[in-house]
Amino acid sequence: MNLPVFLAARAALSPASPALACGEARLDFAQLFARANAMARGLRALGVREGDGVAALLPNGVDLVALVHAAQLTGAALVPLNLRLVARELAFQLADAAPRVLVHGGGELAERARAASAGLPGLRRAPTPICDACPGADVPLRDQVDLAATAAVVYTSGTTGEPKGAELSHGAFLWSALGSALHLGHLPGDRWLACLPLAHVGGLAILYRSALSGTAVTVHERFDPVRVAKELDDGGITLVSFVASMLERVLDARGDRPAPPELRCVLVGGGPCPARLLARARALGFPIATTYGLTEAASQVATLPLERAREPGDSTGRPLFCTELRIVSPDGVELPRGAEGEIAVRGPTVMTRYLRRPEATAHALRGGWLHTGDVGRLEPSGDLVVLDRRSDLVVSGGENVYPAEVEAALREHPAVADAAVAGEPDPAFGARVAAWLVLRAGCSAGEAELVEFCRARLAGYKLPRRIRFVPALPRTESGKLLRRALLGDFVG
Amino acid sequence: MNLPVFLAARAALSPASPALACGEARLDFAQLFARANAMARGLRALGVREGDGVAALLPNGVDLVALVHAAQLTGAALVPLNLRLVARELAFQLADAAPRVLVHGGGELAERARAASAGLPGLRRAPTPICDACPGADVPLRDQVDLAATAAVVYTSGTTGEPKGAELSHGAFLWSALGSALHLGHLPGDRWLACLPLAHVGGLAILYRSALSGTAVTVHERFDPVRVAKELDDGGITLVSFVASMLERVLDARGDRPAPPELRCVLVGGGPCPARLLARARALGFPIATTYGLTEAASQVATLPLERAREPGDSTGRPLFCTELRIVSPDGVELPRGAEGEIAVRGPTVMTRYLRRPEATAHALRGGWLHTGDVGRLEPSGDLVVLDRRSDLVVSGGENVYPAEVEAALREHPAVADAAVAGEPDPAFGARVAAWLVLRAGCSAGEAELVEFCRARLAGYKLPRRIRFVPALPRTESGKLLRRALLGDFVG
Repeated sequence: MNLPVFLAARAALSPASPALACGEARLDFAQLFARANAMARGLRALGVREGDGVAALLPNGVDLVALVHAAQLTGAALVPLNLRLVARELAFQLADAAPRVLVHGGGELAERARAASAGLPGLRRAPTPICDACPGADVPLRDQVDLAATAAVVYTSGTTGEPKGAELSHGAFLWSALGSALHLGHLPGDRWLACLPLAHVGGLAILYRSALSGTAVTVHERFDPVRVAKELDDGGITLVSFVASMLERVLDARGDRPAPPELRCVLVGGGPCPARLLARARALGFPIATTYGLTEAASQVATLPLERAREPGDSTGRPLFCTELRIVSPDGVELPRGAEGEIAVRGPTVMTRYLRRPEATAHALRGGWLHTGDVGRLEPSGDLVVLDRRSDLVVSGGENVYPAEVEAALREHPAVADAAVAGEPDPAFGARVAAWLVLRAGCSAGEAELVEFCRARLAGYKLPRRIRFVPALPRTESGKLLRRALLGDFVG
Repeated sequence: MNLPVFLAARAALSPASPALACGEARLDFAQLFARANAMARGLRALGVREGDGVAALLPNGVDLVALVHAAQLTGAALVPLNLRLVARELAFQLADAAPRVLVHGGGELAERARAASAGLPGLRRAPTPICDACPGADVPLRDQVDLAATAAVVYTSGTTGEPKGAELSHGAFLWSALGSALHLGHLPGDRWLACLPLAHVGGLAILYRSALSGTAVTVHERFDPVRVAKELDDGGITLVSFVASMLERVLDARGDRPAPPELRCVLVGGGPCPARLLARARALGFPIATTYGLTEAASQVATLPLERAREPGDSTGRPLFCTELRIVSPDGVELPRGAEGEIAVRGPTVMTRYLRRPEATAHALRGGWLHTGDVGRLEPSGDLVVLDRRSDLVVSGGENVYPAEVEAALREHPAVADAAVAGEPDPAFGARVAAWLVLRAGCSAGEAELVEFCRARLAGYKLPRRIRFVPALPRTESGKLLRRALLGDFVG
C-alpha cells in the first residue's frame, strides 16, 4: 500500500503550523519540508537511490529531523547511529548495514566518522550541510511511500550480545504514530518535547508522530534537567518523553513544584518506573503514562491510557490500538491472564526482520509473533505488567528471580539512590543474586541492614547474597541499565 | 492486512469510557461491545456467516450502532437502508444486495420491511431485539478484521436512475476515521453529536471514528433543531456534523446566541454551505469546518483545517491525510491548479467497487482514480473549491436526489410522454426538486395527481415540489437532455 510522503502531505495540509523548535531555529511544516527536500536532493547528488541506506551520525537538531524525512523522499533507509558509540562500535554497524552515505556532524563527530569508516572504502562521508545544487540532485524524488519498504534500520542497544539491525518499515512507524495518537489523543496545538536521543526509536517515533498529526516538536540537543524544567515552565509543552531517571532529575530540578497545567502527558518508558517516583510525580500533578516498548516494535507496545495517568498504580498499560499482546510459555503456548511468561507482540508496528540475520529473525518472529525476550503478565483487566528482561533473569536454585523486583525493593530504602541487580555465577545454585547500590549523598547503610530491609519485602531466595556500593551505575544513553556490564569490567 | 475488531480493541483499551448516549441510554465501551456481541450471536443464530449481507432498516439508536459493530464481528457486510425510502425502493436495494437478513424496527418500519421483502423468499426478516440464545448463536465470531473485506454496501443513485451499491471496505472506514482524526485532532474527552441519519455514510463514519478513537457519540433519533440547540447548551458536545440547512435551523433555534465554548468543530457537508450562513455562524463563534465528501469515498474527502474554522472564507478545504485529489479534464488529463474540471480522488478510503456493476465500476474507477462527476478546482494553496455537484444531482437538505430516478417514476404515468427533473434554488434546503413534463397527445394530468402517483414510488424528499408542463424538452442532437437549460433560457 502507498501513501503520500508523510511530510509532503503534512506541509500541503498545514504549511504554516509550527513543526520544529530547536535552539534558535523555528520551522513551520512548509519550511521543514523545504529543508527535507533540499537534503533529499543533496542525497541524490551523493548517489543515494531507492533502496540504499543513509547512515546518520548527527546530534539532535534540525539536520537530523530533516534527514529522517529526506530519507523517505529518496526511498532510502535511514541508519541512525548512537552518538555515544566509539569508533569501533560504529564501524561494526556501518559494515553491517552497508549504507551508501554517512551523514555526520562536525568537530569530534567528523573525527569519529572518519575513524569508523576507515575500513569501508565504498562508504561516502557527507558532513552537513549537504550541497543540494550538485550534479545528480535533479534525480526525481518520491511522492509516494510504499508502507512495506524499509524506513530505518535501528540497531538494538546491544545489552544482550552483538548489535542487530532491526528493519522497520514506513508502515511500522505510521501505525505506531497512529496507535499512539489513538491512545493519547492529539490536538493541533500539541507540542512534544524531545530531550532524548532522536536516533533512538523512541525519538524517531516522535518525529513521525509530528509529521502525521501536524503537531510541533521542541528538540533539545542533549538532556539537561534544568533546561527541561525551564522549558516546561515557559509553557507550550503538552507532551514529553522521559526514561524514569530523567523524570526524577527533572522533578529535582523543579524543586517539586506542581506540574505545569498544559502538560497533558509524560510518557515514561525505557524500563520500569519505580513506584515511589510514580507517586511523587503524580502527587505533583504530573500525568504519567508508563509505556513498554522496544526497538523491534517501533517504540510503544503498551501504554497506560491517559485517563489513568493521574491515578495511583504501577502497571505499564494497554496495547496500542493496532497491537496485539500475549504472554507465552517457553514452548510458545499462550498463557492465561495472570500467568507470567514471555511477552509476544503482533501487529503492523513489528519489524520486518533483523538485517542479514535470517536465523535470529526466524527465532524472534516465530509463529508470526515477535518474541521480545521480556517477561510479563497480563492482569485480568488486560493491563500488561512488565516484570523483567528474560536475558537478565536470575535462575537460582530452580527459582526465577526478576532483578527489577529486587531493585525496586532496594530503592525503597531511604539511603538508596539507585540499585542494580544481576545474577552472579554460583557453583551451588547456578546463579546468585548480587546487587550494586548507589547511596544518597550523606547517607550510609550497611549490607546486613539492607538485606534485613529486603527480607520484609521479598521471598528468601530473592535476597541479595552480595552487595557492592558504587558511585554510579552503567546505563545506556537512553537510561537503560546495562546489567551485563555489572558483571564485567564495570565492577573493577 | 488484519487488525483486531475495532470495538473489541477499544473495549479492551478503555472499557469504562463513555461510548454512546441515546435517549435515556448511556453505554460505555464495554457495554456497547457486550451489546454488539449479543447482536452478533443473534445474527449467527439467524444464519449469518462470513461474507453475507445484513440489511438494516432501523432508526438512529443503540440497535443500529450495535449492529454496525455486530456485522464486523460476524464478517458480514452491513447494508444500511435509508429510512425515508418507500417499499418499492427498498425492495430494489434488497433484491440487488441480496442480504441474508433484514434487521428492522417495529411499527410502521416492520410494515415496510414486510412489503419490501414480499418478493424475496430467501430473505429473513428479523425484528429487534434479536435473540442471542438461539441454536446457532455459538458459531464463533471474528476477532480480527480483514481490512480488504467489505464492511458495508451503501446505495447511491446515479445518472441511470438505478441505485448502485458502493462496496466500502473496513479499511476505507478505518482510513477515513484516521484521516479525520489527523485532520481535526481528537481527545479522549471528545463527544460527537450525530443528529443526521446513521445509515448514511456520514453517520456510519461517526460510529467508526468513535470506536477507533475512543470518543463518545450522542445520537438523536431524528433531527430536531430545538433539541440540538439544547444539547449544545447542556454542554459536553465537542464536535457535530450538519448539512447546511440543519446548521441554519439550529442557529435560528438558539436565537443567535454565541457558540458554546467547548464546541471545537462543526463539520458541515452534504453540499455547499452558503457564504452568508458561514459568516453568520462564524460571527457567533462557531468553528465551521466545511467538508466535501461522497459515499464512494466513505464520507470526507477534503475538509477545512480546524485552525481555519473561525476565519472568513468559503473554500471547502484540504484533502484528508491519506487522500489524494486532482482535477481532470473530460479525457482524464490532470489539470493545473486554478483550472476547473472533474474532481478525482485516490486513496484507501475509496470504494472497492459498485456491487455487481463491473462496467459502472470500471468507468468510475478508471485509471485508479475515483471520478466523482463533481466539478471543482484546486487553489494555488492546495484548497479544493467545489463549484458544483454533478449537473444531474440535486442536493436538497443534505439528501441526494438523482433526477433520472424521479424522471423514471414520472414516465411510468400513462399520461407522461417525457420528463425532466432538475434542482431549483431553495433558500431553506439549498435546492428543491422541479419537474418539466411533456404530456402524451390527448392525455391530461394535474400536478397533485402526478405527485400522488410518485409518492407510492419515491421517498418524500424526492417528490417534485413544482411541475411545469411544456411542449418539448431541450435535448442535444443526439437526444441527451440538457438539464442546465431547464433552469436557464428554456424556462423562459
